[in-house]
Amino acid sequence: MTTTVTAYAALERGGPIRPWSYEQRDARPHDVRFEVLFCGVCHTDLHSIGPWGQTYPLVPGHEMVGRVTEVGSDVTHFTVGDLVAVGPVVDSCRECPPCRAGLETMCQTIATSAYDAQDRHGDGVTRGGFAESVICDERFAYAVPDGLDPAAVAPLLCAGSTVYAPLRQWGAGPGRTVGIVGIGGLGHLGVKMARALGAHTVAFTTSAAKADDALALGAHEVVVSSDPEQMAAQANRFDLLLDTVPVVHPMTPLVLSLTTGGTLCSVGLPDTFDVAPFALTLGRRSLAGGGAGGTSENREMLEFCVQHGITADIELVGKDEINTALARLAANDVKYRFVVDLGA
Amino acid sequence: MTTTVTAYAALERGGPIRPWSYEQRDARPHDVRFEVLFCGVCHTDLHSIGPWGQTYPLVPGHEMVGRVTEVGSDVTHFTVGDLVAVGPVVDSCRECPPCRAGLETMCQTIATSAYDAQDRHGDGVTRGGFAESVICDERFAYAVPDGLDPAAVAPLLCAGSTVYAPLRQWGAGPGRTVGIVGIGGLGHLGVKMARALGAHTVAFTTSAAKADDALALGAHEVVVSSDPEQMAAQANRFDLLLDTVPVVHPMTPLVLSLTTGGTLCSVGLPDTFDVAPFALTLGRRSLAGGGAGGTSENREMLEFCVQHGITADIELVGKDEINTALARLAANDVKYRFVVDLGA
Repeated sequence: MTTTVTAYAALERGGPIRPWSYEQRDARPHDVRFEVLFCGVCHTDLHSIGPWGQTYPLVPGHEMVGRVTEVGSDVTHFTVGDLVAVGPVVDSCRECPPCRAGLETMCQTIATSAYDAQDRHGDGVTRGGFAESVICDERFAYAVPDGLDPAAVAPLLCAGSTVYAPLRQWGAGPGRTVGIVGIGGLGHLGVKMARALGAHTVAFTTSAAKADDALALGAHEVVVSSDPEQMAAQANRFDLLLDTVPVVHPMTPLVLSLTTGGTLCSVGLPDTFDVAPFALTLGRRSLAGGGAGGTSENREMLEFCVQHGITADIELVGKDEINTALARLAANDVKYRFVVDLGA
Repeated sequence: MTTTVTAYAALERGGPIRPWSYEQRDARPHDVRFEVLFCGVCHTDLHSIGPWGQTYPLVPGHEMVGRVTEVGSDVTHFTVGDLVAVGPVVDSCRECPPCRAGLETMCQTIATSAYDAQDRHGDGVTRGGFAESVICDERFAYAVPDGLDPAAVAPLLCAGSTVYAPLRQWGAGPGRTVGIVGIGGLGHLGVKMARALGAHTVAFTTSAAKADDALALGAHEVVVSSDPEQMAAQANRFDLLLDTVPVVHPMTPLVLSLTTGGTLCSVGLPDTFDVAPFALTLGRRSLAGGGAGGTSENREMLEFCVQHGITADIELVGKDEINTALARLAANDVKYRFVVDLGA
């Protein structure tokens, strides 16, 4: 009684994305099934097709927007026809302290990823949003707010959530000076959100050529982080640095830019933190890690985005362009997020 | 018009400590000069005699207790005969935000160390407490509280301050679970203070043989951190870990012991932080650095120590035993702090 679904999968590790079919489970009582309309392309997709992948074929994609086609018997929040969005987490234990607080991405038994994870109820491997249809528990689906472009909403579910949650946790707001390091898929949303939260917002980029773009996104100032003189001038200035860089990079000059007691939150998950302990000690500073927010944070973020008219700046590509988009993403050649138009 | 002072100095990098004389400045208006009675032996002394030293001869020692012998014309807080204590910082800019907040150790122009630093007023190199006399600005001197053994107070000024400041900053108190990692000069005071602050206090030690000692210091529990099974059982448990280990050591199992949003504060200044970024990301955890507190924190700490009867557990040694004490400290052979009896 399963449903045959056409998806776009890496058939083996590192392989290209190709059409592939799989059997999707029947709806459990709290499930919603939706036709995927749009799905963003995240750096995690590159990692997962590559070194991180567990089970192939692997269907990536965890920034999904779609239209509900079926609801389980106990679903209360959605009906057929609703526009829903789903992010990188589709299940969790629901009983540990972070789950009870709506911070399910930090589930102490490890949340269930939208793809390439074992379903918690024995229904095999989870499959992502590069597909004509996805099914998941309604707890992890969000109503897409009216008034925002659904295609540009998709990246909010991972990229947006990953920057919004730490901006809120470390108090980005009026009277605070916040730096966004790396102006890509995550960083461009970080600039928009930090500015909208009321913080004095400074974009850090290695490329002077990106300065005008960063100002256009809403940054009050731009610092070219490859210029030692500009970096030295930032000493002791920032209450919060949100570092979106996904590769190992020198963090000591950034940490020295934090004020006493300030925090650098890295959301890029580099392999190691290249930081000198004395830089933290000197100002009793903190280096934190962060990822996408939980359901309570995501609901708040979507509300906030509606209020401030924030969505991602996207390049919309067709289903037959997924491999090109992945290759361009690997080369940092995108402003600022690819979204695949799966409904077209 | 200077004063000739007998001190105990490393005459060259890595050299033994030998008697040596130097000319101490005349009192400036806010200076107090004091006869050193006791001076603790800190790991920093080992580093400074060794790789960190700048100017030789170098007089170490920055956990000092002494009796005031002279006060400058504008001194208001001390008179001749008072017992005073001085720690690792003896001057700062006094104008930057942390200085104005009484957090002078985090002075944004770099605080002046008790020894081997350039005096801010052109009076040469600062000299430490392994000496018959020391002079410094009264702002950085503290009244030794009545009712505590002055010899055992000396280590509070660095070891005690270095653990008290982060325990307070990250909210160690009732309802919080706090781990103290490494039960040495700093850690033994960390256990006493965390317990007295009301936190559920857990000592982490690599050596099962130290368990009884840690319980005697006040720990509610002891975890043998070299035992993977015991470490795995700590997952997601601690609001704060205060890590006093001065050498590079695996921090990932410690970070995984933090609860969601928890902080590991390293005060041991290892050369690098051996930590996997994912461990921070997974629970939005923080890795902080910390050092000795500023004057406002130290005053509070001394009050707190009087209220709770806290001093260091020391081994008192003579002036002719400084080299032996340094060698034993380098070998971790001390319970828990050497103090040199300079007044004897």
